[in-house]
Amino acid sequence: MRHRSFLSQNCRTEGLHPLCPVSNDYRKEKTMIDNLIEKIEKLNAPVVVGLDPMLAYVPDALKKAAFEQYGETLEGAAEAIWQFNKAIVDAVYDLIPAVKPQIAMYEQFGIPGLAAFARTCEYCRSKGLIVIGDVKRGDIGSTSAAYAAGHLGGVQVGASKCSGFAEDFITVNPYLGSDGVKPFVEVCRQEDKGIFVLVKTSNPSSGEFQDRLVDGVPLYELVAAKVKEWGEECMGSVYSNVGCVVGATYPEMGKTLRALMPKTYILVPGYGAQGGKAEDLVHYFNSDGLGAIVNSSRGIIAAYKQEKYASFGEAHFADASRQAVLDMIEDITSALAKR
Amino acid sequence: MRHRSFLSQNCRTEGLHPLCPVSNDYRKEKTMIDNLIEKIEKLNAPVVVGLDPMLAYVPDALKKAAFEQYGETLEGAAEAIWQFNKAIVDAVYDLIPAVKPQIAMYEQFGIPGLAAFARTCEYCRSKGLIVIGDVKRGDIGSTSAAYAAGHLGGVQVGASKCSGFAEDFITVNPYLGSDGVKPFVEVCRQEDKGIFVLVKTSNPSSGEFQDRLVDGVPLYELVAAKVKEWGEECMGSVYSNVGCVVGATYPEMGKTLRALMPKTYILVPGYGAQGGKAEDLVHYFNSDGLGAIVNSSRGIIAAYKQEKYASFGEAHFADASRQAVLDMIEDITSALAKR
Repeated sequence: MRHRSFLSQNCRTEGLHPLCPVSNDYRKEKTMIDNLIEKIEKLNAPVVVGLDPMLAYVPDALKKAAFEQYGETLEGAAEAIWQFNKAIVDAVYDLIPAVKPQIAMYEQFGIPGLAAFARTCEYCRSKGLIVIGDVKRGDIGSTSAAYAAGHLGGVQVGASKCSGFAEDFITVNPYLGSDGVKPFVEVCRQEDKGIFVLVKTSNPSSGEFQDRLVDGVPLYELVAAKVKEWGEECMGSVYSNVGCVVGATYPEMGKTLRALMPKTYILVPGYGAQGGKAEDLVHYFNSDGLGAIVNSSRGIIAAYKQEKYASFGEAHFADASRQAVLDMIEDITSALAKR
Repeated sequence: MRHRSFLSQNCRTEGLHPLCPVSNDYRKEKTMIDNLIEKIEKLNAPVVVGLDPMLAYVPDALKKAAFEQYGETLEGAAEAIWQFNKAIVDAVYDLIPAVKPQIAMYEQFGIPGLAAFARTCEYCRSKGLIVIGDVKRGDIGSTSAAYAAGHLGGVQVGASKCSGFAEDFITVNPYLGSDGVKPFVEVCRQEDKGIFVLVKTSNPSSGEFQDRLVDGVPLYELVAAKVKEWGEECMGSVYSNVGCVVGATYPEMGKTLRALMPKTYILVPGYGAQGGKAEDLVHYFNSDGLGAIVNSSRGIIAAYKQEKYASFGEAHFADASRQAVLDMIEDITSALAKR
């Protein structure tokens, strides 16, 4: 874990170095949603791989090596998930436009875990991937501004502008309302980044509050209306840099929300392991074939544990992940072609 | 920043060492809410100091020393806010039961900032303070479980149980519903910790979603009913270990919510700088004089910048914070005595 050397590069004196130490020329010319769309079209792959490593997914050989080096410690766990991520990214990066690391899976391992998150984001970017940080942050205005600076923008330290994490999009929780979300939108505008705001989440009890009717309209539609409004302040060429999250597990709601927010990109979790099926997901897309990007986490990164991919064997877990990505792309693009 | 040495202590082989490296005997005997109440009563101080350091609050001399050592980098910023926090904690720890570090203010400085957060939590605990991590996490079940493990419980790494951060309570966002909150409640039960769930936040646009009427009842009251339900699974001797957040800026709602959730402790942000006044806050307390704890952040940690405390001078910023804490306690306890 040489994270300090990475971190020490992450500041600049105004005007001297690019904020991001990795060359990403496309970032300078287009807004982030246009970059994402360009990559999706080029690869014909409206998919994102969720890098949500649990130690139970990491093959024993990787864990053994990490624990031998660092002990059964937070550092050992962080090294194991970093090596796991790296192998998977190396195996799939040419097939996909983006990754979505879920920060909780790193944060549980404290500072070493978060350093593995930072390193994973940075590495993915160096492989040309767009990084969607699944952080679900959201707070009162000044606090959201701090999260936005750390994850998307940059923070001023004396005369230097420093970057906390190398993410291109993050997910945002809207419960606090406009003044908790707008600081993120503002940074997206300034830094050509993007966000996905939670509208209707994929979990079983998401309806407990999100589905409650307000004047006959479910709360998630009120949030969607706000997402549309926030998004108008931060447009790409066709779609907004303010996207939303709608779970694959609620396809009827996805269809309604698609129509309500025609220029909002939908990040769709819940495909595969959580139960969402490709034929249900076609309604999350617009007639231009765009408008949605489907995430799979466990189904890809722990593919080698499924019967379908068991023949790869634990030693070839990353090859199993590659095959699972190919199968997912085929599954979704053929469902889209058939509609 | 010697955070690695702190971190390396933070694992144990099952049964050999306490999870927390710092001795806190009271933690073994009582649930966390009872510990908090005992401290509040002993000090007659239903207050919490928000450790939300912005670089703009840090006196120039501290910043200069930190930047000389680490440069104008994330590490430099992290060192500056850590030294600032430490001086304030040293000046006020004997007056207050708890602190509430807002993680966003650290996370904006990336990994070094988060290491300063971890170190601040650990240091506060070593001074006998209860640590309320204002992290506002919340996600789908398995992901909330990871946050709960990292912030409140512990994470299994091989045969060792490791602790990510030294917090006693954290704040939780309820937008995802029961299955996003219950993993936190479960860890509170297992580890004698607590949470405060966002019900009605202090910011101006909190009403945008939280106040919307569902069958004639505002959403925040529906969330409150769930908080009460979750709390029943995790009781202390009188109050629950599942508390809630209700902003000081909405006193009428605070009064209603107090009555709806008699056994729920209310964490009250928004006093002072955000506009909440002591006479409005008495309604957040029960007739036993308990049931609420009032937070002030900027009003305490940046007290030396207020005209009222300017005579302390920048060099004595921590003494200004101490006086501001004394004044806040007096303000709130005399308002309570008068009601």
